[in-house]
Amino acid sequence: MELVEKMLGGDERSLSRLITMVERETPEVPQIMRAICSHTGQSYCIGVTGPPGSGKSTLVDRMTAIAREKGLLVGIIAVDPTSPFTGGAVLGDRIRMQQHYLDSGVFIRSMATRGSLGGLPRSARRVAKLLDAFGKDIIILETVGVGQTELDVIEAADTTVVVLFPGGGDAIQTMKAGLMEIADIFVVNKADRQGADQVVAELEAMLMLNPKNSDWRVPVLTAEALNNVGIDEIFQAVESHRSMLESTGQLSTQRREQLKKELLQAIEQGVSERLYRLMEKDETLIKLSEKVGRGEIDPYSTAVDILSNQAMLKDWLSKLNNRR
Amino acid sequence: MELVEKMLGGDERSLSRLITMVERETPEVPQIMRAICSHTGQSYCIGVTGPPGSGKSTLVDRMTAIAREKGLLVGIIAVDPTSPFTGGAVLGDRIRMQQHYLDSGVFIRSMATRGSLGGLPRSARRVAKLLDAFGKDIIILETVGVGQTELDVIEAADTTVVVLFPGGGDAIQTMKAGLMEIADIFVVNKADRQGADQVVAELEAMLMLNPKNSDWRVPVLTAEALNNVGIDEIFQAVESHRSMLESTGQLSTQRREQLKKELLQAIEQGVSERLYRLMEKDETLIKLSEKVGRGEIDPYSTAVDILSNQAMLKDWLSKLNNRR
Repeated sequence: MELVEKMLGGDERSLSRLITMVERETPEVPQIMRAICSHTGQSYCIGVTGPPGSGKSTLVDRMTAIAREKGLLVGIIAVDPTSPFTGGAVLGDRIRMQQHYLDSGVFIRSMATRGSLGGLPRSARRVAKLLDAFGKDIIILETVGVGQTELDVIEAADTTVVVLFPGGGDAIQTMKAGLMEIADIFVVNKADRQGADQVVAELEAMLMLNPKNSDWRVPVLTAEALNNVGIDEIFQAVESHRSMLESTGQLSTQRREQLKKELLQAIEQGVSERLYRLMEKDETLIKLSEKVGRGEIDPYSTAVDILSNQAMLKDWLSKLNNRR
Repeated sequence: MELVEKMLGGDERSLSRLITMVERETPEVPQIMRAICSHTGQSYCIGVTGPPGSGKSTLVDRMTAIAREKGLLVGIIAVDPTSPFTGGAVLGDRIRMQQHYLDSGVFIRSMATRGSLGGLPRSARRVAKLLDAFGKDIIILETVGVGQTELDVIEAADTTVVVLFPGGGDAIQTMKAGLMEIADIFVVNKADRQGADQVVAELEAMLMLNPKNSDWRVPVLTAEALNNVGIDEIFQAVESHRSMLESTGQLSTQRREQLKKELLQAIEQGVSERLYRLMEKDETLIKLSEKVGRGEIDPYSTAVDILSNQAMLKDWLSKLNNRR
């Protein structure tokens, strides 16, 4: 593919166009992914996540500055929760990163949620692969929010930094639960605010009770991203984690399992999509669906009945490998 | 089923046991759902959602008190994001609701996320149906967080109340995006805090630009749930919304479409589960998966190849209707 060749040759406009194709899931996507496959696996992916208001974007901005000082090329994928309602990614935070927009060593892309279940993690991972093939040394996956979609996005990261902040009140209480097992590094940002020590102490207590990886003690760092305090330490912690993953062989295991998982998910996705299209046209199902809609029969036991109806299932399945 | 009979007769212990079965997805679940089907559709379901720290639980507590004063029976399903790590729902907020624990007219159940993609919305909806069949007049679905899972849970509600608060800073900025199209009523809670007026003004401006339903103007209410201020108005707004849905016929349309959707999802779920089990045993796939894991081929184009491989797909599909 000419576009892929140009991108691999360093053309940023081609990269942008390929990203757009991946986001829109155009028919060329499998071909693109195949073409770049042998050029991937060189970059290191850092996930940065945490609740809204924790100052993730500023932190990413500061970490980018350090990476650039070291001469590393950086790609940033910022996943913003948004919707058809607002019509695009929330760009407020991005404005802070303007300095990097003028730096050709940094490529920034915001991606919107758009409500498509499962679609975003898939797209974000593919975009990360494009940035990898493009030659970025570091890819930062920044996700806003703490839902399942965000956790699925961050799963593709080699090292995950979870950013919290004091004053979130019971926010912290609820949020750290979902974030606890994905964190390789905790950062308590806005550490000049009251209550930072307590958040640190709470996190350390929880981590002590529940060690995740015998080769890695999850550090709890403090930072004031806005004042550029504590950023070096975060960067060093990421590098330590990376060294550990590399020396223990965990990095390759982790990446191998991730790729296998992506294969299974892609197959499942394909089958589901075809099945949905089929179901929408099947007359028996449409009739059953109307009965369910009227409340005459319930959806769950009806689904079980259908799934154990050999004849019906076979009929569907025989049609399943037709693309439309 | 004896347990269902006892539950329908008003036995709360049977209800609790049925809920546990639904949460664990035991084999009896389809039978349970079938048995209660004709007893559902009487209760009204209110969804309450919003970012952590917005004071949802307190609000639910206050709304419950009003419903009880009116003699209505209330069921509350509180969905807390949690994980195998903490091992259970975050109960902090629940403590505030202790007064209702002693009231037999209120049934409260906390449900945990447990990381199972898609599993929680399914379980929560089924638990809501149990509470419906049990005879609750009002069911409140409270979800913490703003991820896709939470949005899927709240989809089953007849009226959705979105709770925001001032001082979340850019939290508000990002969050309202995802919540905008599901809100039937906005509540700016903690309205005594600085910045409440601004949040209200912003929301109203956005709502004016993007009206959702020509029969309903989404109100933006203020409240101080902790001080019991503004709760009557919220309850009245829910009742107005309900009247509108009933008089325009939207309530039955909305519920009919929701049931149909649940049928399709249940079928898709069943097929996916079987397919996953199959894929784990298929030798050709295991070999391809190893190649993907080694980075020799990429997962996405490999999935497309597999899905267009007629022979392979047929072989799988012929095995698909075996339960194990």
